[in-house]
Amino acid sequence: MDRRKIILDCDPGHDDAVAIMMAAKHPKLELLGVTVVAGNQTLEKTSRNALNVCQHLGIDVPVCAGCGFPMVRQKQVIADDIHGETGLDGPVFAPLTKQLDPRHGVDFIIETLMASDGDITLVPTGPLTNIAMAMRREPKIVDKIQEIVLMGGAYQLGNMTPAAEFNILADAEAAYVVFTSGRPIVMMGLDLTRQALCYPEIVDRMEKIGNKAAHLFADLMRFFGASQKKVFGWAGGPLHDPTCIAYLIDPTCIETKEMYTEIEIRSEKCYGRTLCDYFNTQHREPNSKVCIKLDQEKFWNIVEECIRLYN
Amino acid sequence: MDRRKIILDCDPGHDDAVAIMMAAKHPKLELLGVTVVAGNQTLEKTSRNALNVCQHLGIDVPVCAGCGFPMVRQKQVIADDIHGETGLDGPVFAPLTKQLDPRHGVDFIIETLMASDGDITLVPTGPLTNIAMAMRREPKIVDKIQEIVLMGGAYQLGNMTPAAEFNILADAEAAYVVFTSGRPIVMMGLDLTRQALCYPEIVDRMEKIGNKAAHLFADLMRFFGASQKKVFGWAGGPLHDPTCIAYLIDPTCIETKEMYTEIEIRSEKCYGRTLCDYFNTQHREPNSKVCIKLDQEKFWNIVEECIRLYN
Amino acid sequence: MDRRKIILDCDPGHDDAVAIMMAAKHPKLELLGVTVVAGNQTLEKTSRNALNVCQHLGIDVPVCAGCGFPMVRQKQVIADDIHGETGLDGPVFAPLTKQLDPRHGVDFIIETLMASDGDITLVPTGPLTNIAMAMRREPKIVDKIQEIVLMGGAYQLGNMTPAAEFNILADAEAAYVVFTSGRPIVMMGLDLTRQALCYPEIVDRMEKIGNKAAHLFADLMRFFGASQKKVFGWAGGPLHDPTCIAYLIDPTCIETKEMYTEIEIRSEKCYGRTLCDYFNTQHREPNSKVCIKLDQEKFWNIVEECIRLYN
Amino acid sequence: MDRRKIILDCDPGHDDAVAIMMAAKHPKLELLGVTVVAGNQTLEKTSRNALNVCQHLGIDVPVCAGCGFPMVRQKQVIADDIHGETGLDGPVFAPLTKQLDPRHGVDFIIETLMASDGDITLVPTGPLTNIAMAMRREPKIVDKIQEIVLMGGAYQLGNMTPAAEFNILADAEAAYVVFTSGRPIVMMGLDLTRQALCYPEIVDRMEKIGNKAAHLFADLMRFFGASQKKVFGWAGGPLHDPTCIAYLIDPTCIETKEMYTEIEIRSEKCYGRTLCDYFNTQHREPNSKVCIKLDQEKFWNIVEECIRLYN
Repeated sequence: MDRRKIILDCDPGHDDAVAIMMAAKHPKLELLGVTVVAGNQTLEKTSRNALNVCQHLGIDVPVCAGCGFPMVRQKQVIADDIHGETGLDGPVFAPLTKQLDPRHGVDFIIETLMASDGDITLVPTGPLTNIAMAMRREPKIVDKIQEIVLMGGAYQLGNMTPAAEFNILADAEAAYVVFTSGRPIVMMGLDLTRQALCYPEIVDRMEKIGNKAAHLFADLMRFFGASQKKVFGWAGGPLHDPTCIAYLIDPTCIETKEMYTEIEIRSEKCYGRTLCDYFNTQHREPNSKVCIKLDQEKFWNIVEECIRLYN
Repeated sequence: MDRRKIILDCDPGHDDAVAIMMAAKHPKLELLGVTVVAGNQTLEKTSRNALNVCQHLGIDVPVCAGCGFPMVRQKQVIADDIHGETGLDGPVFAPLTKQLDPRHGVDFIIETLMASDGDITLVPTGPLTNIAMAMRREPKIVDKIQEIVLMGGAYQLGNMTPAAEFNILADAEAAYVVFTSGRPIVMMGLDLTRQALCYPEIVDRMEKIGNKAAHLFADLMRFFGASQKKVFGWAGGPLHDPTCIAYLIDPTCIETKEMYTEIEIRSEKCYGRTLCDYFNTQHREPNSKVCIKLDQEKFWNIVEECIRLYN
Repeated sequence: MDRRKIILDCDPGHDDAVAIMMAAKHPKLELLGVTVVAGNQTLEKTSRNALNVCQHLGIDVPVCAGCGFPMVRQKQVIADDIHGETGLDGPVFAPLTKQLDPRHGVDFIIETLMASDGDITLVPTGPLTNIAMAMRREPKIVDKIQEIVLMGGAYQLGNMTPAAEFNILADAEAAYVVFTSGRPIVMMGLDLTRQALCYPEIVDRMEKIGNKAAHLFADLMRFFGASQKKVFGWAGGPLHDPTCIAYLIDPTCIETKEMYTEIEIRSEKCYGRTLCDYFNTQHREPNSKVCIKLDQEKFWNIVEECIRLYN
Repeated sequence: MDRRKIILDCDPGHDDAVAIMMAAKHPKLELLGVTVVAGNQTLEKTSRNALNVCQHLGIDVPVCAGCGFPMVRQKQVIADDIHGETGLDGPVFAPLTKQLDPRHGVDFIIETLMASDGDITLVPTGPLTNIAMAMRREPKIVDKIQEIVLMGGAYQLGNMTPAAEFNILADAEAAYVVFTSGRPIVMMGLDLTRQALCYPEIVDRMEKIGNKAAHLFADLMRFFGASQKKVFGWAGGPLHDPTCIAYLIDPTCIETKEMYTEIEIRSEKCYGRTLCDYFNTQHREPNSKVCIKLDQEKFWNIVEECIRLYN
């Protein structure tokens, strides 16, 4: 069977780090590269974090820094309340020797897609700036994208405002570009990822695997879980980004529903809302598969399977 | 114990009709009057429906027609897909002899509040036009309102657009006026009322009570349930408005959470969104108790208790 | 010749005071009543000012207080930088004995229109709250309105924000109701009224007429001119509201252009913009005559003529 | 005296073509390159037009194609009603041999600025997509920009909607990025450029110069004038873009006023409004010099001077 080619566009971030970990080794996936965007922390920090994770786990793919600011909005929102000062507080890494690929993340996306046969899936787990900037710089890439499997949005409760989820709020104009691109989108919103709460017993289960990935997972999740508890009052942190990878490995672990989804960019108060038309009240053709139900057993099994691939 | 004085401001509508039925006879409540607003159908029809329900059940309170159009928006939205041509399709009523009170609904609200000691609760179960028009015509009433217990909004999924619930969408500017009034608000949104699905077995249970209220309830709910099934796919219709009355009779049947709630009136796509800050991401003082969980057993017992009061 | 029946709805205000003066005695006009709205100052103050002007000039028409707050927005904007602490700083009035008509301004408008043959022109020179509230309380009045000749808006520069003029900004939702009412509208915007700058030589000219109206005019304009100079740097104050009366007396003093005009109520920054489609870029049927050029000689002659009617 | 270094970012377009003509040879200016953007026509056509003008006039600078779509909005607005099918209807050009520089326009801007000492002025005369995309791709360029002298916007009447001018409307998000960049901006809006109407006698005057630039000018302006007459009813076309070049050659030909200018990107109806705070009602630090008055004699002399530089 062919491995599914993906570019992971991320802003590590604890859950992004786990997504990298899961995407790099699984036999069903071929990770072509990691592009980095500002989000959970500044671009400088998220880039460093991506390199650290790759070096630590021996993941040998290009890591390209992309955009450090949202397309239009003036201020970068970061999530240091959740991810800490470095954007990846918790684990301790060895001195960093792995270097960034010299290409701009946006160029890496464009070049890789243009050289492809239309068989690459984009997996954005941070703000959608890099993807949208690539689409606008080189509109020809749009038809080359097989699918976009992204983490972001919510059709119920936001986490940054009553209306909006972090990744979309951080660059709603970029999200608007992506959701109006006409390409197939699978959206892992908070509605889904809040079903992937990583309780202490999960952390223990993974840690027992005992390899370097297992220990990294545990170090990451202990910090992340504590932040989430402080901010949202949950006993476990929602493993947002890894749901994208789990879905790519085994789509049966997640139930989706086809909906027409629009991004609100005109309102001050609802800026970044993902207007997923759950009941199809607007009678429009769906442009996205919105994820609604996680098979938790399957999901954690996939996470475990991915961790066990490290030795 | 004193009975709690209420003005029921409604747009019957099947669930409004049940709310009238429940509010009129319960020993804990004193229904001072019914004011009517356009909503589920035109003002002419909702007024007629309110009169029909009162006449049929022998409810002797003033019924005053209020506003027939939203405060600002140009078009009246009606819900004839749900409530039918008359706004109360299903039951057959005797020829109507009960007449409208000559006072405008807005004046009835103003006069009744101004003559009170601040012990009246407003119970709007339709668009908030009458309440807001009264507040703007006579700002002195605001401090006279004890509490506003309303049906409207949603912090999760809307029912008219991805963002908005019918009552708020129908006159979001009026909702804006009410939610910024500074008075205590209890909001029964769709999040709550979708827990009050009136399944066929509930209809059967109530019908067996065997009095005229029971039969009216059954006639209303059979039509309403069928509409809801067609539009939303549910096996029972959500008994939206009666949750307000049940809460007034026994607040322990509903769990609430204090939230700051804003009404979106500036966005085209999110117009009418109730931005309930569930996680208090904006760190503002709550201005509303938003209802989150229905004790279904208690609720249906209250409904039954109310129906049994008729003979 | 029949006199043209008008209701003057105003928020005095210096230029409103001159409008009352001009409207009350001219043989071409029949002033049915003055309704008052909050605007240049609070309702309490604008009502008092209207009474003072009427008493001082012996104008015997009903003066009815209307709405003290805008329809939807939370805060009343007032223009005390221009009109001073009382809203009519400058003249000294005798103790006030004239009393408000007991009717609410909105009711006066509704009752007067409903009793008419459709031959009444509304002349709003303040925020449009009273007019819009009347339209929404009793939609049947709309067809009874002959024409609406209003002061407000701008198709070029606003005076309160870059986008908006005071009267429209003060209650843009009300303006939206009026401009979507379907009735003929003549709009005196800032584009026109800034051509009616009342320079010191004009004040001198009118003062020389020597009657009580002349002296009141001079007292009003000296204060008003000084405020305008401070805020906008002009040598004379724009006699905004009287342009409506001059137009009613002799429409040839003002050049108009038919345009489709929309009111912006959805934007935070452009709230209250009158989007007058000067070049008809949107290809819509005009709904308003927007005033573009003042014949200054004719205008000041009309003002003088009106002042001379007092003795 | 040093020549002022400029990059001309344009979407030719008749008036852009004249701007290129004027910028290329004047001893006070050093034209480093021409970057092209979609606007008056598609990118393919505006690129071809820029090449044609350069080839025809023997202008030997790099011409780089930039962005073909606006940053965020879904649809490209073009102005084929004004500029015709090719975007430069009127003149006939020889077969095109001059080729596009291989660099993307955005990269040319970034590379040229990054290699500079901060002495380069950007002169955008089309939608601001290229400039904004460059700022977001490489934020370090912002501090390298000496000044931005742009054609776009209006503080009075728009030309595409009542609110908006073409260049800003075509990519308001890009304009938002530029106007919030913190760099000095000189804005030639319609308020100014409508003072540069190119009447037939001006065309005749320039044509008499008799060189190839003169003939090109005449061919361009005859078509352009006819379009403007059809769409706006003017006897001459406003020579929008050349006002930027005239200002750079001799700033005394244009009176400016410092204003704080914001770009409206949140409203549907006012999208693309340049909110220039003429009266400083918002009391903010100016971020732009907005052009208000053209010295027409000086301006046409500069145009003539530029045309005479060709032989």
